[in-house]
Amino acid sequence: MRNILIIGAGRSATSLIRYLLEKSESEELYITIGDISIQNAQKLTENHPNGRGIFLDVFNETQRKEAVENSDLVISMLPARYHIEVAKDCIEFRKHLVTASYVSDQMQLLDPMAKAKGLVFMNEIGLDPGIDHMSAMQVIDRIRDKGGKMLLFESFTGGLIAPESDNNLWNYKFTWNPRNVVLAGQGGAAEFLQEGKYKYIPYHRLFRRTEFISVDDYGKFEVYANRNSLKYQSVYGLDDILTLYRGTIRRVGFSKAWNMFVQLGMTDDTYTIPDSENLSYREFVNSFLPYSPTDSVELKLRHNLKIDQDDLMWDKILDLDILNGEKKIGIADATPAQALQKILEDKWTLDEDDKDMIIMYHKFGYELDGKKYQIDSNMVSIGDDQTYTSMAKTVGLPVAIAALKILNGEITTPGVQVPILKEVYEPILKELESYGITFKETETQYLGYNPNNVVA
Amino acid sequence: MRNILIIGAGRSATSLIRYLLEKSESEELYITIGDISIQNAQKLTENHPNGRGIFLDVFNETQRKEAVENSDLVISMLPARYHIEVAKDCIEFRKHLVTASYVSDQMQLLDPMAKAKGLVFMNEIGLDPGIDHMSAMQVIDRIRDKGGKMLLFESFTGGLIAPESDNNLWNYKFTWNPRNVVLAGQGGAAEFLQEGKYKYIPYHRLFRRTEFISVDDYGKFEVYANRNSLKYQSVYGLDDILTLYRGTIRRVGFSKAWNMFVQLGMTDDTYTIPDSENLSYREFVNSFLPYSPTDSVELKLRHNLKIDQDDLMWDKILDLDILNGEKKIGIADATPAQALQKILEDKWTLDEDDKDMIIMYHKFGYELDGKKYQIDSNMVSIGDDQTYTSMAKTVGLPVAIAALKILNGEITTPGVQVPILKEVYEPILKELESYGITFKETETQYLGYNPNNVVA
Repeated sequence: MRNILIIGAGRSATSLIRYLLEKSESEELYITIGDISIQNAQKLTENHPNGRGIFLDVFNETQRKEAVENSDLVISMLPARYHIEVAKDCIEFRKHLVTASYVSDQMQLLDPMAKAKGLVFMNEIGLDPGIDHMSAMQVIDRIRDKGGKMLLFESFTGGLIAPESDNNLWNYKFTWNPRNVVLAGQGGAAEFLQEGKYKYIPYHRLFRRTEFISVDDYGKFEVYANRNSLKYQSVYGLDDILTLYRGTIRRVGFSKAWNMFVQLGMTDDTYTIPDSENLSYREFVNSFLPYSPTDSVELKLRHNLKIDQDDLMWDKILDLDILNGEKKIGIADATPAQALQKILEDKWTLDEDDKDMIIMYHKFGYELDGKKYQIDSNMVSIGDDQTYTSMAKTVGLPVAIAALKILNGEITTPGVQVPILKEVYEPILKELESYGITFKETETQYLGYNPNNVVA
Repeated sequence: MRNILIIGAGRSATSLIRYLLEKSESEELYITIGDISIQNAQKLTENHPNGRGIFLDVFNETQRKEAVENSDLVISMLPARYHIEVAKDCIEFRKHLVTASYVSDQMQLLDPMAKAKGLVFMNEIGLDPGIDHMSAMQVIDRIRDKGGKMLLFESFTGGLIAPESDNNLWNYKFTWNPRNVVLAGQGGAAEFLQEGKYKYIPYHRLFRRTEFISVDDYGKFEVYANRNSLKYQSVYGLDDILTLYRGTIRRVGFSKAWNMFVQLGMTDDTYTIPDSENLSYREFVNSFLPYSPTDSVELKLRHNLKIDQDDLMWDKILDLDILNGEKKIGIADATPAQALQKILEDKWTLDEDDKDMIIMYHKFGYELDGKKYQIDSNMVSIGDDQTYTSMAKTVGLPVAIAALKILNGEITTPGVQVPILKEVYEPILKELESYGITFKETETQYLGYNPNNVVA
């Protein structure tokens, strides 16, 4: 038996664990799931004879080292900041490591040691980062292999509510960490390349500079820019590309409505509100509006945000019950962002039967033999239920497949890495297809920035 | 002779030095001006027999300690972050200290030692902070002394261009550190109290939530909120006040126009622009606008900012020559804020004969014997020329007067402090009057927030 240690039995670990347990007989695997909650860990083994859940506190060095030492490969599904001690143990005890997280500077420093010991430290092999790297590199390598020159690469991902569960005016529910949704886009201007020019969008304009995309059978979506589209420019070998843009997918209309909160200042996470615990939703809204002895919060809000009488924006606001004077924030020393999150969670939490949906969309522009082409490629994944969500599938399955292929010697290149090598992405994308994670591709002539030939 | 050491011979030191030199015969003063530029220091002595300029590097401990030891009182006009070593020397050698800067945490820690040695460490005794503290406390103490209860305190200050030199469409020139103007309002939401409620304005709305004030003979001005209006709430003894608001004064229309830069993202100081040195002004503007193969930067800018054909905003933009395709930013690794500052400096730098203007405006609301009253108080100061500016006068004269009164034993309360005690502000405000720094007061019934009795 080969021993796989999975640390962290959170929401994104379900499909990962199911995959490995299903393969455990044929592949002779024994799966140990370590979590701070032994109940969580045990629940996910579903009493499988080849799996067990154990109590594991990653801050307990003895316990952690023992668990790592007794494994053949370690998968860390912990929050990214907790990987590093596990990674150091993996170096010490010569174990391969797989994570779905961004490579931290500390992790990168382990690269020479991992290489020296012949260990694969595979990171960023979840959904985004993960499937985005692999599916993009597959097309980019194919274009380059036939002599094409990359002109444009745009890549978008969104964690959304499935159409069958999409029943509020915002066309949105929290299918993942709500805090990340509330804080999305903060921390600096969005930066990207368009036709060779650097472009910047400040946070307060981010949700009003969206673009549209269409996905067959699913309709129209909108995209707002991620903070740093240029991060993987060199990693992907796109140093000379003219257009490079990464973004987040939402249903059409979400961003314009979300922008109301941004404009009011409700997404600010840098200061706390006095007596926030006893503040009503209505008082919370009013704290971002000028004082008036005569006017209602309703009219002040409409005036402040320039919401016309017949604008659907207003219905979206009412849909959240955010002007309720009785409901309290109920959180001490809350930042505006925390208070807003609380209000949204009342309405945007998944119902029991709700399903989530992941959409990924890439656009590639290239030149070959003097002609310009465009490839549009998209993937849609719908969750089975609230345990085996599309988020858990798309994050966990690539992790699981990679882990098994490393154990089986199919992925061998050592070192701290992300899945951009053909030896990694080809077999993993191939196997993901059997789990319904497939990309649909269309190729056309290059449409560029003036598809309708508008003239000056 | 009593020796006064002035460290830092910058632009704000001119009036301070002239005051002390003028008094040097009658008061038996000898003034030593220490600066990293001995030329600067010597120039400001104007060959006065009771003054000398010396080379002084505050980072040279021996030199600094020697200069402090040989003085009876030290005035530090250095940037705030350099005061602390000087202050420690003052403790060591038992010297009084005067600065125009905010009390830092490090400075506050010296309070017990200053008290133990009977030393006056007077800070925040320039214009703002300084004259604002003194003139406000004078009125607040008067209201309280007659049994009044404070309801409202609003306080505004602006460094502006004098009417006779006001000749551009923005009604603004840089009369002080341009960088502070470009970055004004950043670093967090503005926070204040209105009728007992905490109110917040995010940075990107700050310049669109202005209020108007009128000053006799000078017309109408506008005010935008400072970041933290509540800082002095307890210090002023206003814990129960309903309305507390501090702001910055500009000519009407400035903020709405400045907001264009904020909206575009041009005031961001958190990232650098690649090859900014060779970027033209026009390209700089274009980097905040979407790419278009057909449309001009002009129309994209108008569209982005919703500037109508006949809107004066457009003339303000053209007035800055910011769409010039030939002029280069010329600064390597510039942030957007640095690039914008460069562009503005082309147009907003003072002409040789230009004069600056300081305006301070306080509004006090209070209740006495069941009736509500309001006091409006304002001060206008115009500079003599570009050496003895109104900024130098209003910052430097209170510093100089305080220094002399400390030396003469008229101000004696020891410790790290700001000028809110009657023994401090009364004689200083009195003497400032003889230098034309006077407040005009009007008292009316309390106008509150509904002066026109609008009904719901």
